[in-house]
Amino acid sequence: MTRIGVAMLGYRFMGNAHSRALGAVRQLGAALEPDLVSISGRKPEALEEARARLGWAEATTDWREQVADERVGLFVNGGPNALHAEPTIAAVRAGKHVLCEKPLALSADEALAMWRAAGDAVVHATGFNYRFVPAVRLARELVRTGELGEIVHFRARYLQSWGWDAVPADWHFDPSIAGTGALGDLGAHSIDLARYLVGEIEAVSATVRTFVPGRAVDDAFVATVEFENGATGTLEASRLARGRINHNAFELNGTKGSVAFDQERMNELQIADRGAFRTVLAHGDWWPPGHIIGWGDTFTYEYLHLLQAIAGDGTIAPEGATFEDGYRCALVCDAILRSSQSKRTEAVKQ
Amino acid sequence: MTRIGVAMLGYRFMGNAHSRALGAVRQLGAALEPDLVSISGRKPEALEEARARLGWAEATTDWREQVADERVGLFVNGGPNALHAEPTIAAVRAGKHVLCEKPLALSADEALAMWRAAGDAVVHATGFNYRFVPAVRLARELVRTGELGEIVHFRARYLQSWGWDAVPADWHFDPSIAGTGALGDLGAHSIDLARYLVGEIEAVSATVRTFVPGRAVDDAFVATVEFENGATGTLEASRLARGRINHNAFELNGTKGSVAFDQERMNELQIADRGAFRTVLAHGDWWPPGHIIGWGDTFTYEYLHLLQAIAGDGTIAPEGATFEDGYRCALVCDAILRSSQSKRTEAVKQ
Amino acid sequence: MTRIGVAMLGYRFMGNAHSRALGAVRQLGAALEPDLVSISGRKPEALEEARARLGWAEATTDWREQVADERVGLFVNGGPNALHAEPTIAAVRAGKHVLCEKPLALSADEALAMWRAAGDAVVHATGFNYRFVPAVRLARELVRTGELGEIVHFRARYLQSWGWDAVPADWHFDPSIAGTGALGDLGAHSIDLARYLVGEIEAVSATVRTFVPGRAVDDAFVATVEFENGATGTLEASRLARGRINHNAFELNGTKGSVAFDQERMNELQIADRGAFRTVLAHGDWWPPGHIIGWGDTFTYEYLHLLQAIAGDGTIAPEGATFEDGYRCALVCDAILRSSQSKRTEAVKQ
Amino acid sequence: MTRIGVAMLGYRFMGNAHSRALGAVRQLGAALEPDLVSISGRKPEALEEARARLGWAEATTDWREQVADERVGLFVNGGPNALHAEPTIAAVRAGKHVLCEKPLALSADEALAMWRAAGDAVVHATGFNYRFVPAVRLARELVRTGELGEIVHFRARYLQSWGWDAVPADWHFDPSIAGTGALGDLGAHSIDLARYLVGEIEAVSATVRTFVPGRAVDDAFVATVEFENGATGTLEASRLARGRINHNAFELNGTKGSVAFDQERMNELQIADRGAFRTVLAHGDWWPPGHIIGWGDTFTYEYLHLLQAIAGDGTIAPEGATFEDGYRCALVCDAILRSSQSKRTEAVKQ
Repeated sequence: MTRIGVAMLGYRFMGNAHSRALGAVRQLGAALEPDLVSISGRKPEALEEARARLGWAEATTDWREQVADERVGLFVNGGPNALHAEPTIAAVRAGKHVLCEKPLALSADEALAMWRAAGDAVVHATGFNYRFVPAVRLARELVRTGELGEIVHFRARYLQSWGWDAVPADWHFDPSIAGTGALGDLGAHSIDLARYLVGEIEAVSATVRTFVPGRAVDDAFVATVEFENGATGTLEASRLARGRINHNAFELNGTKGSVAFDQERMNELQIADRGAFRTVLAHGDWWPPGHIIGWGDTFTYEYLHLLQAIAGDGTIAPEGATFEDGYRCALVCDAILRSSQSKRTEAVKQ
Repeated sequence: MTRIGVAMLGYRFMGNAHSRALGAVRQLGAALEPDLVSISGRKPEALEEARARLGWAEATTDWREQVADERVGLFVNGGPNALHAEPTIAAVRAGKHVLCEKPLALSADEALAMWRAAGDAVVHATGFNYRFVPAVRLARELVRTGELGEIVHFRARYLQSWGWDAVPADWHFDPSIAGTGALGDLGAHSIDLARYLVGEIEAVSATVRTFVPGRAVDDAFVATVEFENGATGTLEASRLARGRINHNAFELNGTKGSVAFDQERMNELQIADRGAFRTVLAHGDWWPPGHIIGWGDTFTYEYLHLLQAIAGDGTIAPEGATFEDGYRCALVCDAILRSSQSKRTEAVKQ
Repeated sequence: MTRIGVAMLGYRFMGNAHSRALGAVRQLGAALEPDLVSISGRKPEALEEARARLGWAEATTDWREQVADERVGLFVNGGPNALHAEPTIAAVRAGKHVLCEKPLALSADEALAMWRAAGDAVVHATGFNYRFVPAVRLARELVRTGELGEIVHFRARYLQSWGWDAVPADWHFDPSIAGTGALGDLGAHSIDLARYLVGEIEAVSATVRTFVPGRAVDDAFVATVEFENGATGTLEASRLARGRINHNAFELNGTKGSVAFDQERMNELQIADRGAFRTVLAHGDWWPPGHIIGWGDTFTYEYLHLLQAIAGDGTIAPEGATFEDGYRCALVCDAILRSSQSKRTEAVKQ
Repeated sequence: MTRIGVAMLGYRFMGNAHSRALGAVRQLGAALEPDLVSISGRKPEALEEARARLGWAEATTDWREQVADERVGLFVNGGPNALHAEPTIAAVRAGKHVLCEKPLALSADEALAMWRAAGDAVVHATGFNYRFVPAVRLARELVRTGELGEIVHFRARYLQSWGWDAVPADWHFDPSIAGTGALGDLGAHSIDLARYLVGEIEAVSATVRTFVPGRAVDDAFVATVEFENGATGTLEASRLARGRINHNAFELNGTKGSVAFDQERMNELQIADRGAFRTVLAHGDWWPPGHIIGWGDTFTYEYLHLLQAIAGDGTIAPEGATFEDGYRCALVCDAILRSSQSKRTEAVKQ
């Protein structure tokens, strides 16, 4: 099997998730076999612990070394949001394929620069891993094949509750690192699913809010959206919804049928035709039906697609998210922020 | 037991629901015992069938006779929306207590006229029966006693699917009779629950839409709302959500806890404190715990409160909805319609 | 409409449930209109309160007066179990139609005597009200029409938790009044549903247990059952299942499909064909789809059928339970008790 | 990190599951790092494909080579049931630690021989992976710490539906390879969970049944059980339950509380104290709360414990299942088979 050298920036939550997936793809027949060349981060000791545990050959505190490393074919950017643009642009300019975590950038302008830098020369992917949930993929198929008819409504909510008890020092609350709060962290996933399942969003009307005193990023937002194809929808995210742990949920209503999804029951897709909802256990190719997969497995599917794209077609689209998708998601985020200021419906302009 | 004469306008869906409840209140120890004096409607034959079946002493095609009837102490208006204002105003002027179905009127102006006519002279109620669901009442208690803390989010959706297959002749689609579509029929319930549980709505941003060609009223709307107390929320209603039958659902998140409700599982309230949601079977005083009540029973509770108000305090507030509540709900409906036109956030002005 | 005089023994829980239903049937087009002639019980004061509240014309502490009353066409026995046989037999001998609560008797022998006394002369019904839940009726239809194929498994559990905290004086714990505990109170319902949906039970193997010290009746039982048609099953009831309020649930698997039911979500039937379960909201004729009915409404349906039987065919079978059904259920209860003693599989013998 | 050589018999379903877990343990800080020395099976071509894909260094068609291999410290037996005893006994005699899949053997006698062969010299484990589900572990903790009080009931059902449509050639239906059908394949898991959570089973009464014509193993069984500590229970397994995919579910009721679990929603534990059930998302140490794990991850936890046992205490008990647990489970299976023949309650004798 042909091999590909991989370098990764980031060694915490996303570092764990990506490393695990890179180790698991071989078993599922990946098109390329990853060599874990190097991992980078800023704190040498913690980095070395992670390197050894996660199975990377080398560690470095300078991502520029990774970008310049000839052994590296794929650069994975799992660092904090503010560290997405510069290393990613350097990597694509050095001819590396790149998978960058979401939100792709701190603004649509920055995301656009990343997309332009990548161009057609390399395979580029934005880490919208929920696209790779089998139940979400099934929803997509039902839309694509017309089984749900024309879509009229989409509603999504991504609710967590840890925001009440979080420590102020958490980087998620530092706008210089995170950009936005619930919007970019959670809402970006919902926006990407909206685009993936329904189509482009034309206009938004939104309120973005910070409830916790002293917090510099948003805790929550609510939005109504209009899609280019005429569907209407609601989007909402919050880190302040008691009882909700990782409630990334959506429902989509078409002229012929509906689907509903909740990440906390990630293996299930609720599907209705003209009658009642049924609970379908969507599954991948791994285990027999009914043997559920986990959140971490979505990254494995993501890499299966990405490595196939690198070995083959040259793009992770349409099933995976490219930098263009990261950019178009950022355009919606920006419009949401503008609308919250202007108190008007805002077009999602390029 | 003291008795009270009742006259009702309307003999179909709402006629059934109200008649059944008027027959059931005695068993639960109502403060007054209703005498079913007369029922009115426009089609004599169907009216007579209903009269006999529902147990009313007399039938008339002229509601004015009912309003003038000295035997009548309570006038129930279960007619179509366009027939709410005139008979109701006539009844309160004649000194009758009135329970009028929702939406109270075709516009906030009309609702205001009804409220003003009623004044303090009679007991007036708007038929927001979901306030009388034990699980909703429990939610209200958790808010009132502070167990949920300060409310930060409220989200409600009222989804049905019959709009796809409905016959065009249905009066619900005739704006001269119904006023609006999903907004007044379904959204009004969500708006009332929002006000009941969270407080006054200050501003809305909404899109109101008709999807089915040739239809003269709205099929659906989406809205974001801002409450006077600082909470944000989303409201949505649709008659075009395949798989949803009568999905009148809401969730409320506070600083200390959350609750969630769905009318299709009307006996359950999902309650979270700082931990997980638990499924509480809220029940009334009728049966032992776990023996669930039905939708029709909400009307029985409504009459228990109304008859108590008539026999006692003179108002169904704060637990029941008065004409003021019907009016304030109409103000929000009007703001939603304005916002959909203006593409701006609209204040809910008196 | 032709009227029928009704007398009832019992004025507490069952008295409430039956009275409410007798008042509600007219609205649904009952074949006969009930006149509430008299109610009986042992404590004059409480009885009079109930009589007035429930709308009965007269009260008496002697059920023999009711049985002898010429105005009475239907005798309802809602008294404690030990008071089922004698008044019921007297009533049927006096030519009254009888609806007797479940369990029909303290033993199969006693039940047989009741059935024999009733013969074909009167309409006789055992109060297995869960047969009248629309979702259960739907399950029955799916069996009857062959949509589920041949039945291979039936499993039922009826779990409550109040047994932990009940006061010892409760008559449910006095074997001279109640007969058995969880077996007759809860298990009888499951046994009747098993017979109604699957067919006759041929043999049982069971353990009947009392856990609470000093209690003279069973708290719980577990059983495996074999049906005449070859299906196997499990039955279980307990008053000691923390967290369970009135969890009367069953699942039935056939060669072509399955159904599952839980009384706490009484309006829903889970239906699977060869694929996934879907959640169907079964409903009656009362309200539009999705407007759920309550536990009390099952009694209304029961009376609709019973009054139709009295006015017409002369039997509540096959949809309603006759005294034969009460007797056959008692045979299974007796076999369960025998098996728990013998530690053997016991045939359900007549 | 110290390393340990691993050899595995079996390369299909269980081969996939074990290989994946062996690759994933390092990231979670395993006590030993596995070297994948060799994999064995009977069909050279398919074996080689699996070897390469699953990352094993060598492949062999003779498990005796593996047992004799000095590089091997841990022998994993993931072969068909009839191939459990001989290779496992050979391996433990050769001083290898062994993890053998369930059911441990074709009979209790065979299982006893395996346990005796293993003795205290090596670490031995039976592959009851559901013990390592975080929600099951949480249930165990609630029992162990007394939060549920004394256990009075345990009910388990393991339902699948693939038995209707399976090809006759499937080895699961060959008694010379599989031993029993649903009993050993599914029921063994439920029996182990019963023992793990409640304690030893003293007696059983059961019916074991084959429904599909021509099938040589059981399709289903039902059983009542009595525990040494006085609790009663029901056990049931079927491959013929339409709509059920991998419904491995149990409920446990104690004097103070209850828990309920379903593998299809494997991350959730329903927990009740004296009030209502709440849905707790139990999670491991991998991801933040709410990011669910999958069925495959249970094997990773299994290896984490096993490698810790090898590096440390010398036994996977009490949290993991030893050969003694495999044996005691087989004793219950044997008693179930005896009871189905004798139509009597059978003691679970050693």
